[in-house]
Amino acid sequence: MAIVVSLDKSRKDGAKPSLDAIENIVSEDLGRVNRLIVEKMESRAPLIPQLAGHIVAAGGKRIRPMLTLAAANLCNYQGERHITLATCVEFIHTATLLHDDVVDESMLRRGRESANALWGNEASVLVGDFLFSRAFQLMVSDGSITVLKILSDASAVIAEGEVLQLLTTNDTETSEEAYLEVIRSKTATLFAAAARIGAIVAERPGAEAEALESYGMNLGIAFQLVDDALDYSADQAALGKTVGDDFREGKISLPVVLAWRRGDNQERVFWRRTLENLEQKEGDLEQAISLMEKHGALGDTIERARHYGAIARDALGIFQDGDAKSAMIEAIDFSIERAF
Amino acid sequence: MAIVVSLDKSRKDGAKPSLDAIENIVSEDLGRVNRLIVEKMESRAPLIPQLAGHIVAAGGKRIRPMLTLAAANLCNYQGERHITLATCVEFIHTATLLHDDVVDESMLRRGRESANALWGNEASVLVGDFLFSRAFQLMVSDGSITVLKILSDASAVIAEGEVLQLLTTNDTETSEEAYLEVIRSKTATLFAAAARIGAIVAERPGAEAEALESYGMNLGIAFQLVDDALDYSADQAALGKTVGDDFREGKISLPVVLAWRRGDNQERVFWRRTLENLEQKEGDLEQAISLMEKHGALGDTIERARHYGAIARDALGIFQDGDAKSAMIEAIDFSIERAF
Repeated sequence: MAIVVSLDKSRKDGAKPSLDAIENIVSEDLGRVNRLIVEKMESRAPLIPQLAGHIVAAGGKRIRPMLTLAAANLCNYQGERHITLATCVEFIHTATLLHDDVVDESMLRRGRESANALWGNEASVLVGDFLFSRAFQLMVSDGSITVLKILSDASAVIAEGEVLQLLTTNDTETSEEAYLEVIRSKTATLFAAAARIGAIVAERPGAEAEALESYGMNLGIAFQLVDDALDYSADQAALGKTVGDDFREGKISLPVVLAWRRGDNQERVFWRRTLENLEQKEGDLEQAISLMEKHGALGDTIERARHYGAIARDALGIFQDGDAKSAMIEAIDFSIERAF
Repeated sequence: MAIVVSLDKSRKDGAKPSLDAIENIVSEDLGRVNRLIVEKMESRAPLIPQLAGHIVAAGGKRIRPMLTLAAANLCNYQGERHITLATCVEFIHTATLLHDDVVDESMLRRGRESANALWGNEASVLVGDFLFSRAFQLMVSDGSITVLKILSDASAVIAEGEVLQLLTTNDTETSEEAYLEVIRSKTATLFAAAARIGAIVAERPGAEAEALESYGMNLGIAFQLVDDALDYSADQAALGKTVGDDFREGKISLPVVLAWRRGDNQERVFWRRTLENLEQKEGDLEQAISLMEKHGALGDTIERARHYGAIARDALGIFQDGDAKSAMIEAIDFSIERAF
């Protein structure tokens, strides 16, 4: 597949896009968010900071709170509210991760033992509930009904998306539209809310809030699509990264949807056995990857991601050029080009 | 045990206290709450109204939303906000029930198959998350930061209480204070918030809001203590009601705490085997009840409940006498005297 030529001229020609620029922009604020996360996990129940600390420390890229911080920077926001609200966003995300692991019965999360493997499902459910409540307490302390509406709406959509996904799991006939509806709800909605909040705290006009929401939503979709492709990537496997988690769970992601639709009856027998009935044996993952490559399903999943990435980029068109905008565009490129 | 003579003279002498009076006071409003519950469970994921409808239809007494409605009535509130907010309270309660059943691995809830037995843990976790988010959306539509603070604080305390309970489960050395802390958090905090909201919507002075909060808190403690005693009641068993659920789960409730503290070493061996190690055999529940009766643990649990009931009653002292106040006092008496 051809390498995307970045439209952002501020980057050195040929340099691979990374999150470095956006991390630089938000680095001081993100440090404050990380400290607030630790402070607000405190509880008279010591298990809460222990368990929540495990998942927070496991890292991840903190991409959602970074979106709030970067969007606030793009909007020239000078106050303090973005620190609290970026923390809310990360707490909501962490709560959904904890509940997801219970739902998926995952034993690993970001390469470490998952919280439910270490402390049991009960604790994961309850600490998730606590973090979710704590997020709302923080929003209440911020005091904006507008922000509360954005994040309570997002939370309801995320929960609905998770329930919808229960129904598509193991259904190989899932359509591309149904799949997109799930990732829009499960992943992209919180990206959108996180970015939108940057404009809200800066009291920018509605058009800028909507532009940032569109940026977040489309970046979130692109990000998830690439994640889904990477989970079947032979290159990733060669780099020593885990692949095949989605396959083992019978998750129907876009590479599967495309391979199924482009495949013949014999191939569909394979997909039904492995993903609907979860009867998997040695060599099945390699067979799945080979069918996807045969039908161009992985490359076309990245092509779909590129489409959403382009929308995200154009959404930022109304903002003045500058470091924040370049960094946010590079984050889109990174989301897509990490596939190569 | 002696029958409590009610202090409420409006009730017929000798009539057993019931929830009839409070139900009469709120009946029209409660009908509207029930309709709003059904309306707000709607979702593009049909599993949500199915599963939530199962648990909501299973009934229960709707005591928490009734507290909001009755308190609003006591405060002469004439608006509509109490309907929405009573619905929020019931949604938060239902969400915690769904998550509790996952935690307890309960197969029965209110005598019916529990939601997690019918639809699986995943669905119970996610639909609980949805109802919780929906509750916050409804609060946001109400628009009061004061109410949002009351209910987000309550939600965080409830989740902390659930985590604390994880740690006391199966620990027979749990103290009475630790036990009280758990039920104050898990049960009484939402009763307190529900009642307080009645004064908030009516824009009554702080003293009345605090009085209603105290009423709810102490009623909630009394209610839970009596529930805990009833779970070991031979009389209840004779009436065909289920007893022994707490025993089978190894839950350390006040009757256990008292029997343990008053028992000898041989008895403690029994409690450790049955509740810490969960090694239970035929006749153990009967033995537990017999040890509790020997030490007066059940009667004294009711005595403790009576103490909190008295505080709840006195909290209402600052309100004018009238139907609402009598009905709310009768609800206290009912909570306690249903033990006989």
